[in-house]
Amino acid sequence: MELHELIQSLKTDEGGKIVMVVSDGIGGLPLQPGGLTELEAASTPNLDALAARGVCGMSLPILPGITPGSGPGHLGLFGYDPLVFQIGRGVLEAAGIAFPVGPNDVCMRCNFCTIDADGNITDRRAGRIPTEESVEVVKTLKAIEISGVEVFVEPVKEHRFVVVFRGEGLGGSVADTDPQKCGVKPLDPIATDPDSEKTARIAKEFFEKALVILKNQPKANCLTMRGFAKKPSLPSYKELYGLNAAAIAVYPMYKGLASLVGMDLVGQPANLQEEVEVLKNNWDKYDFFFLHWKYTDSRGEDGDFEAKKAMVEELDKVMPDIEALLGKDDVLVVTGDHSTPAKMASHSFHPVPTVIVAENARIDSCQKFGETEANNFGGLGHFQAQHLMSLAMAHANRLGKYGA
Amino acid sequence: MELHELIQSLKTDEGGKIVMVVSDGIGGLPLQPGGLTELEAASTPNLDALAARGVCGMSLPILPGITPGSGPGHLGLFGYDPLVFQIGRGVLEAAGIAFPVGPNDVCMRCNFCTIDADGNITDRRAGRIPTEESVEVVKTLKAIEISGVEVFVEPVKEHRFVVVFRGEGLGGSVADTDPQKCGVKPLDPIATDPDSEKTARIAKEFFEKALVILKNQPKANCLTMRGFAKKPSLPSYKELYGLNAAAIAVYPMYKGLASLVGMDLVGQPANLQEEVEVLKNNWDKYDFFFLHWKYTDSRGEDGDFEAKKAMVEELDKVMPDIEALLGKDDVLVVTGDHSTPAKMASHSFHPVPTVIVAENARIDSCQKFGETEANNFGGLGHFQAQHLMSLAMAHANRLGKYGA
Repeated sequence: MELHELIQSLKTDEGGKIVMVVSDGIGGLPLQPGGLTELEAASTPNLDALAARGVCGMSLPILPGITPGSGPGHLGLFGYDPLVFQIGRGVLEAAGIAFPVGPNDVCMRCNFCTIDADGNITDRRAGRIPTEESVEVVKTLKAIEISGVEVFVEPVKEHRFVVVFRGEGLGGSVADTDPQKCGVKPLDPIATDPDSEKTARIAKEFFEKALVILKNQPKANCLTMRGFAKKPSLPSYKELYGLNAAAIAVYPMYKGLASLVGMDLVGQPANLQEEVEVLKNNWDKYDFFFLHWKYTDSRGEDGDFEAKKAMVEELDKVMPDIEALLGKDDVLVVTGDHSTPAKMASHSFHPVPTVIVAENARIDSCQKFGETEANNFGGLGHFQAQHLMSLAMAHANRLGKYGA
Repeated sequence: MELHELIQSLKTDEGGKIVMVVSDGIGGLPLQPGGLTELEAASTPNLDALAARGVCGMSLPILPGITPGSGPGHLGLFGYDPLVFQIGRGVLEAAGIAFPVGPNDVCMRCNFCTIDADGNITDRRAGRIPTEESVEVVKTLKAIEISGVEVFVEPVKEHRFVVVFRGEGLGGSVADTDPQKCGVKPLDPIATDPDSEKTARIAKEFFEKALVILKNQPKANCLTMRGFAKKPSLPSYKELYGLNAAAIAVYPMYKGLASLVGMDLVGQPANLQEEVEVLKNNWDKYDFFFLHWKYTDSRGEDGDFEAKKAMVEELDKVMPDIEALLGKDDVLVVTGDHSTPAKMASHSFHPVPTVIVAENARIDSCQKFGETEANNFGGLGHFQAQHLMSLAMAHANRLGKYGA
């Protein structure tokens, strides 16, 4: 029996609420042998108290040694085997602006860029054109019509926008047109499987029509197309777990991921305090809350140990407000989608410290929330992230017994 | 997506070198409750220093409770699921003498034995006939011709030799002819599936022709055939990991295993010091080195706790020479293919202490290299051996990110 079949057969209609706080890239490394990680070096009295009264463990996002991107990292946390369910970047980006991606859609991330008189790229991001300007340029592209398909063009942020082709027979396997450097022309969209040749032809036609429209733009006079993708077939949180789920996030990418598994995107929070406010305001309406904290990853990617530490401390400060919402059967999970050690300035493969607080947690010997304690004493041991939802459901008394 | 497909899609062309030292059967057991294992009882200042500055864990060769032979034990370490990729003993033996096993070959290990006038076996190993005599007897068998197939007969050591039949339609499923006891005749080769009936007939014909040739031999006047096998389809180290890999081993079996996954067999070392010399001399030519140390297993199999301990100490002494080769991005792994506790005088199912030393290892609390510390504090936790190569590749910065 597959994991999803098992969970669906065991899920119950009642039980506690689950709050999953995902501190992006929270796992780290010491800068020097014998030192502390960012999380361990941070002052985290509230997270430490959770570790002391909960059960900790180390989450393996994919498999040992495998570094995930944000998509597979979050799919794992949501309980979808990231090696089975694969989400392309274009679909993520489209879902992130709440575009309702359908089964006949091919989505792509586009960037405005600047080209010179010869058609060679001089700026791959069109001078990071401000969002308010970009929105106006995107509007001009909505005029493009292509026979046989519907075309959607939607702004995202700065130089980024989304294009969606909707129609029959559109495969999602087309190579990026961004040459990843200046001084050359954008690449042609090339199908990488026979089913995607129609998509490649349409993309080419879109590009040529866009060039005509954009030719007098001072900066955004061209575009590149990346991450062509179709939506994968994912069971929803409601189907899989029986949970009414809400996602609370600032960044489009994480909203997009959550909406792909059927979570409602609630609120328009701009920072962590507002995310917690949205959580409070929606507390009675949902069974499950995904609350995403971005900046532990961002500062890790910057290679800034101290700044990442500070972002951990920001998270720590809001934990009491989240805890205050929890009733007797409710479950709080704090984890990450992967590690982002400042030392490496990138996502990494290292396991992610995780804590579950619940009435029926078997409290372990961890007294602090950190990599070393979770590894040495964690009652959850090392586990694949795709099993975290089963653990959360079990702790919330939401899973029945398997077999008689 | 399967593990191999994943690794192939993520492998990069650059990164550090990887040295995997396999101390055969290194895991052990205390002789008395409360005692130390062979590894823990040994004086290992160098291995302990590696544990202190690396990350440890417990490798499960196959699955919990499953004791591997040398073949599956090494395949797991090399990253090939030993339950999917199965290598017959005959193929191992043939590869171990650098016989180029092809896709139409059926290989078997043969033993010279002694039979009496009635044809009953009196010595299953022909008095362990010396290699130089055996080589001469093997030569006489090269005269055997069988219609429709090519026949190869090659010496190995003492009473052991290899026979290979090459031709179309030869299955590899034939039962051993060694009755495993004296006083009876060798068994007939019997096909255990319909595709192997031709092989069984040819084996019978080979046996009968050999008997005629051998009838005047004083000791080696008969033979038994064991481990009939065809070569499995294994992706090479180069295909799978993008690694130019070298194998450094004394014993044919381990050379054979390494060559089946496409490693080059380098040098002709006769002992551990020579193995390290070969490593030094080939350092610039390869990305990956498998260095095999046999005697921890041999002395474990002997049931000799003290002797196994001494073999661990021999390994410890050469570690500084290996470490001296490592640059900043390079990775050193010390592990075993299985445990061989002297207390059991056999291979066992117990997990194997393992250490990875690398710049980006998340250093754990282990201060010594041994079963208890690796189990209590190992940052790699308990992991299946087939993931060790992913871990080594990740630590050597040789794997890209999975998904966006």
